Amino acid sequence: MSDSTSVANLSRGTASVLPFLYVAWADGLLVPSEIDALRERIEAQAWLSNADREQLTAWLDPQRPPDATTYFRWVRAIRQASAHIPDADQKTLAELGVELATLAGEEEGITFSTPEAHRALEEMEAALGIVGHEVVRDLVERTLPPSGDGAAVEAVVAIPPAFDVDGMQRIIDGPRAELRRRVFRLLRDDAFRRPDPHIGDPAYRNMVLGWTKHLAEQGIGALAFPDYAGGTGDIGAFIAAFETISFHDLDLAIKFGVQFGLFGGSINQLGSEAQKREYLPAVGTLDLPGCFAMTERRHGSNVRELRTTATLDRDTDEWVIETPHKLDHKEWIGNAAQHGRMATVFAQLVIDGEGFGVHAFLVPIRDERDEPMPGVRIADSGHKMGLNGVDNGRLWFTDVRIPRENLLSRFAQVEADGTYVSPIPSASKRFFVMLGTLVGGRIAVASGANSAAKCGLEVAVRYGDRRKQFGPAGGDEVAILDYLSHQRRLLPLVATSYGLTFALHDLAEKFAAMPPGADTREIEAEAAALKAMASWHGTRSLQEAREACGGEGFRWTSRIASRKADSDIFTTFEGDNTVLQLQVAKGLLAGYREEFENLNAWGMLRYVRDLADVRFGEINPLARRDSGRLHDAGWHAALFERRERQLLVTAARRLKHRMDQGMDSFDAFVEVQDHLLTLASAHAERLVYDRFRAAVNATEDEHLRSVLDLVCTLYALWHIEQDRGWFLEQGLFEGTVAKAIRTEVNALLHRLRPLAVDLVAAWGIPEEVLASDLV
Amino acid sequence: MSDSTSVANLSRGTASVLPFLYVAWADGLLVPSEIDALRERIEAQAWLSNADREQLTAWLDPQRPPDATTYFRWVRAIRQASAHIPDADQKTLAELGVELATLAGEEEGITFSTPEAHRALEEMEAALGIVGHEVVRDLVERTLPPSGDGAAVEAVVAIPPAFDVDGMQRIIDGPRAELRRRVFRLLRDDAFRRPDPHIGDPAYRNMVLGWTKHLAEQGIGALAFPDYAGGTGDIGAFIAAFETISFHDLDLAIKFGVQFGLFGGSINQLGSEAQKREYLPAVGTLDLPGCFAMTERRHGSNVRELRTTATLDRDTDEWVIETPHKLDHKEWIGNAAQHGRMATVFAQLVIDGEGFGVHAFLVPIRDERDEPMPGVRIADSGHKMGLNGVDNGRLWFTDVRIPRENLLSRFAQVEADGTYVSPIPSASKRFFVMLGTLVGGRIAVASGANSAAKCGLEVAVRYGDRRKQFGPAGGDEVAILDYLSHQRRLLPLVATSYGLTFALHDLAEKFAAMPPGADTREIEAEAAALKAMASWHGTRSLQEAREACGGEGFRWTSRIASRKADSDIFTTFEGDNTVLQLQVAKGLLAGYREEFENLNAWGMLRYVRDLADVRFGEINPLARRDSGRLHDAGWHAALFERRERQLLVTAARRLKHRMDQGMDSFDAFVEVQDHLLTLASAHAERLVYDRFRAAVNATEDEHLRSVLDLVCTLYALWHIEQDRGWFLEQGLFEGTVAKAIRTEVNALLHRLRPLAVDLVAAWGIPEEVLASDLV
Repeated sequence: MSDSTSVANLSRGTASVLPFLYVAWADGLLVPSEIDALRERIEAQAWLSNADREQLTAWLDPQRPPDATTYFRWVRAIRQASAHIPDADQKTLAELGVELATLAGEEEGITFSTPEAHRALEEMEAALGIVGHEVVRDLVERTLPPSGDGAAVEAVVAIPPAFDVDGMQRIIDGPRAELRRRVFRLLRDDAFRRPDPHIGDPAYRNMVLGWTKHLAEQGIGALAFPDYAGGTGDIGAFIAAFETISFHDLDLAIKFGVQFGLFGGSINQLGSEAQKREYLPAVGTLDLPGCFAMTERRHGSNVRELRTTATLDRDTDEWVIETPHKLDHKEWIGNAAQHGRMATVFAQLVIDGEGFGVHAFLVPIRDERDEPMPGVRIADSGHKMGLNGVDNGRLWFTDVRIPRENLLSRFAQVEADGTYVSPIPSASKRFFVMLGTLVGGRIAVASGANSAAKCGLEVAVRYGDRRKQFGPAGGDEVAILDYLSHQRRLLPLVATSYGLTFALHDLAEKFAAMPPGADTREIEAEAAALKAMASWHGTRSLQEAREACGGEGFRWTSRIASRKADSDIFTTFEGDNTVLQLQVAKGLLAGYREEFENLNAWGMLRYVRDLADVRFGEINPLARRDSGRLHDAGWHAALFERRERQLLVTAARRLKHRMDQGMDSFDAFVEVQDHLLTLASAHAERLVYDRFRAAVNATEDEHLRSVLDLVCTLYALWHIEQDRGWFLEQGLFEGTVAKAIRTEVNALLHRLRPLAVDLVAAWGIPEEVLASDLV
Repeated sequence: MSDSTSVANLSRGTASVLPFLYVAWADGLLVPSEIDALRERIEAQAWLSNADREQLTAWLDPQRPPDATTYFRWVRAIRQASAHIPDADQKTLAELGVELATLAGEEEGITFSTPEAHRALEEMEAALGIVGHEVVRDLVERTLPPSGDGAAVEAVVAIPPAFDVDGMQRIIDGPRAELRRRVFRLLRDDAFRRPDPHIGDPAYRNMVLGWTKHLAEQGIGALAFPDYAGGTGDIGAFIAAFETISFHDLDLAIKFGVQFGLFGGSINQLGSEAQKREYLPAVGTLDLPGCFAMTERRHGSNVRELRTTATLDRDTDEWVIETPHKLDHKEWIGNAAQHGRMATVFAQLVIDGEGFGVHAFLVPIRDERDEPMPGVRIADSGHKMGLNGVDNGRLWFTDVRIPRENLLSRFAQVEADGTYVSPIPSASKRFFVMLGTLVGGRIAVASGANSAAKCGLEVAVRYGDRRKQFGPAGGDEVAILDYLSHQRRLLPLVATSYGLTFALHDLAEKFAAMPPGADTREIEAEAAALKAMASWHGTRSLQEAREACGGEGFRWTSRIASRKADSDIFTTFEGDNTVLQLQVAKGLLAGYREEFENLNAWGMLRYVRDLADVRFGEINPLARRDSGRLHDAGWHAALFERRERQLLVTAARRLKHRMDQGMDSFDAFVEVQDHLLTLASAHAERLVYDRFRAAVNATEDEHLRSVLDLVCTLYALWHIEQDRGWFLEQGLFEGTVAKAIRTEVNALLHRLRPLAVDLVAAWGIPEEVLASDLV
């Protein structure tokens, strides 16, 4: 059978045209009219024998395609012959035809003139308009896939690190490096091995409680508490611990955060010295498991309107805690469904029928035998999308009585005669100071979301570096991270995680360094802005990571799914992102003189008026095309700052315009909400850029600095590219600059591709903690 | 005690200044220097008594804020008095002060001149720069939250439907309305009640198998099969059934799709008449559960390079199926882990050492006792992010022997003497015809993703219509869907689901109407483009719905989480979205002459060259600002078409430029991948717009047409706004137009807000199928 498909059995003329026959019937290359034209051309070739011409034109009848066997024989004949032709894959169709003709059998009575034939074939090829050498390469190299051991395809090719990964890790870890490594060492212990996905909620909750106890025993829970409660009063250490735990398991992080950060933190920050000494030691050891009972079913974001009441009973000197309606129960309270013994309950403080606003009270909810206290009804919040290792629950209070002293009394006391006393005159200000307990939590949640993002991105980058699919004609398959489309998915998010890390570490240290009583409003605004940005970054990164790993990312053991499910609520809790962003924008409008949560912020109207009078002195200094600027940090900074400033001033103008026309401020703010959200995002992106750039500048090692500079430039240009609609609309740069930015982003991705695996390795996540079967 | 806080006990002078004292110490309104200025002004008021001036200036010392009790007394005094002042909430600070003074006690020896005091108070108010009446409204109306039954807050306010919802549903359902309603009726049966989330994978799989049987018994599975197999040969009906089932449960939809669409479809489309008659009846009743075994661990997207082989053993007249390497097993095969008896296995067909490319073979994998057949190794693909009711598995084949007749032989037969015969000469073409079996699946998957999106959006819209949070000063809380930020999240996605519905129904009907043997390339390209768009739309919509419902969306019983988890893989399976988009772009480049999957698409180079020669005859006819155009369907269409065309031509130019410089086409395509993805998205958005607009135009009822027109306009303007960066960059419109579009989108959202609940109701999803506790 092989004889019939050898070129040796063909005439030289037929052999020379064989590549054209292949092209004619290869799928999708030629349309029928073109096949017809090829046939006519062949009919005109005097150097072909009549027999050849007849056969060839028969094979080129668009109405009667050759059968599969014939077509296959051509292909096989070409391939077999090609094995004997040096550099066959470099030939054009015409050159290959000539070579095939020389291998074909000699025929009687025919003069095969090579130069003439060669010229004729070249003309045919030119007329087809095909780039012949690629066709040929695909044809002659396409063989059966090797069926032997293909393990090499999957093997990780060891690339020498292009930079000092350990040095980079030290820069990222910052001053808390030792604590981070210590927590990682704890988490690598077998005790922290994650459970089977079918463990069931009650068992999983107990496992997570055990993990939390383990950390408490090591003193990790009490880090932010005073020394008499086992800590060092270092909230920065606590946040670093939370950030590190979040790499391992977000259920553990949240359980840990509820117990020590929210419950313990409320006592530590809102309690008197006596209250702290009474309760914090047992909180830090987890001997007193507790809750932070703020959110209600009908009031989540709008905390000021909570409906639970704490009414002073003068006769018994007690507070009476009441849930006024069955739908006003405390909801989603962590530690409530199964383990909590006590709760910090936020309620409207009432004396003699007068309300003094929301205050925090310590309310026992379970006794020593884990039975609910009298008047306390507890229910489970139910199965959730994720975080099922945390026992969220609901609390109803009916005539629940606690001593007068259980009001957390750092900022408000009620004396024995019922006199209300506070060092802060304004109820509104007192309210915001109390809400300040959430700030540490917001920084922690933002950091945890970034940790989850990093886990997903590391898995996806390492998988993409190894996973191969498709490739050039006749060549090996290519690692998917070598595709621009894949780099665009992942590497800008890696750069954003870098930026967020520097910004959040900077914020945590500033927060930790605040002296007691200092004005925390700027920190609060920064925490709100970064919490929204980091948690949305987490959601997006894990989504991209899942998709970038294809079906493998869908498998539970990739741990992308569980991290996505667990972190999803980070955009909602500790302040809904949209609500936080609106607060950030209002804070910016009020020049940081207004505190957050004040949606009815009539007080800022005058500042809005001041702002609206600002005029930009300069017109468009950034518009000129100047590609040298694309790597200029000053230019990036100017764009980020200009955007934020301009959005701020134009928002103020739009508000003023509406209110000048008599519109209620509430309605005016609703009408420009899209503008305010844009402002808040711009603010956060600018903040992160500033902190990232400062970290670059502070890097002493020149090589590491140059690597970080590239990553920071990618952060800047990618975010500017994403929002180029705004920059163009405002005339801040022209379309040519927008295109140059896109080109430069692609160039940066190309440069950073070989460093990608090292960039994620520098995050220093131990394999046992990453715990993904994809790496 | 109430006496001491009554204005009756204050001097008239003090009472008149009370509102200013409140403002002075209310949080965030005034800075110390302003309080100081207020004090100086009060000191200058001759009409105040000395005693009053002394007391008031003491209270306005920035260094010594009043204590909380004093401040509270002011507030209470103002509020109590306000109850006696008509329209107190309409007053300015000065007017309120005058009213309070009239209620204050008469004092000896002091002439309180109202006009003088009034003027002085007005001057003070003006100097403060405060919008007094809002301050006053907030002050006088802020009372304790009502503690009674607040059920009304949550009650659904019945709004009369603003349009004929049933009529709209008929338009959406289209010609398959009866079948859709029939499937919904089946799904509402108790037998389809969804399980507890802890059911465990094996039990859940059996439950889903039972559901699938139930549908098979009703003839729903066999709809696309010939009459002798219980069907009507109507693939359009099958896709409509799949789309409807997807509202209920995606596990069921996928199990159903694997059995009847992929396994059954492969036999129906690739099998000979005899094979169809032999197998399809048992497939349609689920008596023969089967698999579609295409994907391998190392080859998912790149199907052409699959490594499983089917080698003809001439001695026994059998195919020998082999997995060449342990990592080349079939992976993610639905129905394989638990229920499948047979599989359509895609393998490289080999005769006498020659490869003929990928072909499909029917391979028994389990016997009647559910034991694996000899040589077949089966493993479970493991727990997944979602779809755990589907038994995805892995298959390895070692010397597995099947009769020669088990090659599915519509497009390729091998005769008894080993001769390979096919009506399609080109191996490449044959390959793509075989892949055509996936087209119906892609349309179905796109439709199912849109169904999942609609479920999430309906829940979020109805929740947002009812859930209230925050509100104007002193007013009721507002439904969160009344906020622009919330409308922006949800309503453009609702509009996109409308558009996708019309586009996918149109595509399904075109596909169903194709005569056998017709050229399906355009349908395939459209299916690929819409599959990518619809599945990403599903992921995004469910993510937004989750966040828009806050913590409630995180609860399992909201069913948002499970739908998100189950639908997540829709962006990956039946063709990875990115790979599909690149194929779409290449198809566009080749003028639909190239089939999909052909990544080494050297054949299109010449078409690229042709395209690159196209010049735009007109410069920028769309740039002029003309707000009348914003609702002009012709203008929308022109923008969508212009974008697609321009992206196509510029992509061709960039490719040509690179290849002219000698770059390999593979590398050239990789370098412009971002451009190609943009092109594919633009193509899909244009397609959906065209189909949506056609549906609007075809609507006979004038009122319904006007409603649909608004939704279609929102679709158009929102998508154009999202990509305004591109339009601006290309100079297709100016910044002023971009801003006008944003304003118009906001105006449209405002108009559509009252119709939102009806718009989602018109999708006609029964409550039992939506099955969310949030509605």
